[in-house]
Order: sequence, then C-alpha cells, then structure tokens
Amino acid sequence: MKATVHVTLKTGVLDPQGKAIEHALGNLGFDGVEQARQGKFIELELADTDVDTARARVTDMCEKLLANTVIENYSVQIET
Amino acid sequence: MKATVHVTLKTGVLDPQGKAIEHALGNLGFDGVEQARQGKFIELELADTDVDTARARVTDMCEKLLANTVIENYSVQIET
Repeated sequence: MKATVHVTLKTGVLDPQGKAIEHALGNLGFDGVEQARQGKFIELELADTDVDTARARVTDMCEKLLANTVIENYSVQIET
Repeated sequence: MKATVHVTLKTGVLDPQGKAIEHALGNLGFDGVEQARQGKFIELELADTDVDTARARVTDMCEKLLANTVIENYSVQIET
C-alpha cells in the first residue's frame, strides 16, 4: 500500500526557499509569479493492508517525525 | 490561478533523505515501511488566467529551474 504525505509550511511562516524560487523565476523572465512556497513530498511504501490503519499510522509518523507541527501542516493520502 | 508541482527523484537514483526517513521510522518503532522517497512540492500563485498557458509556462519553469531533469521527474497540476 502506498501513502503520500505533503508537508507544507504554515501560513505566515517565512519560506526562504519559496522566496528564492520567486526571485529566480523572475530573473529567468517568468513574470506573474505572485507567490511560491516550497514543501516536502514523501512517498511511503507500507506493508499495511487496511486503509484506516495505514492512515492512522502515517498520521502518527507525521506527528512524530515527518512534520514539525509547530511550523508545518501535513496531509496524508493513502493509495490502495 | 494556483499551480502545484511535484518533483521526485527518478527510479534508481539514490535518495539519502528517503533512506534517513526509513531508518528513523524503524527506530521509532514503525514497522513495515518498505520504502520511503522524498521529493519536493512547490505551490505557485500565478497571474495567468488561461489553464493551458499556465500549464505550458509552469512546465517550462520545471525544465529551466524547478527540476533537474537528469535525475528528477516532475508533474504539474493546475487548479482553477
């Protein structure tokens, strides 16, 4: 079973990587990029067979390791 | 208009961050994580109003800046 996790910075948290992308795109001539934010995308291959169990486990992984919940949001998708 | 880009390492390219996640999850007692791969997730806020134009421009951004196409794949989603 495959799980994907998106970890993004919370609104209001400074995102230097995103700012760097904005500036670099501007320098390359790409106009009209009003905002860029960069997050992490994690793909997990799990041995679990039950969707609800897998979702609960991956949420737990996010809370404990994958995301810093003080400054980051996360979302979990399970693909069967 | 919002565009999201996923940049992932190509199959076969060594992913030390993914390996670190695998080991850390194992050390935390999360069994059954067979593989972890980490990629980037980029959210762009664009001034474009046409979906096809936006998609073409973001694809161009990926080719020129956001992804290293030698070792990375990318996918572009446009949200209207």
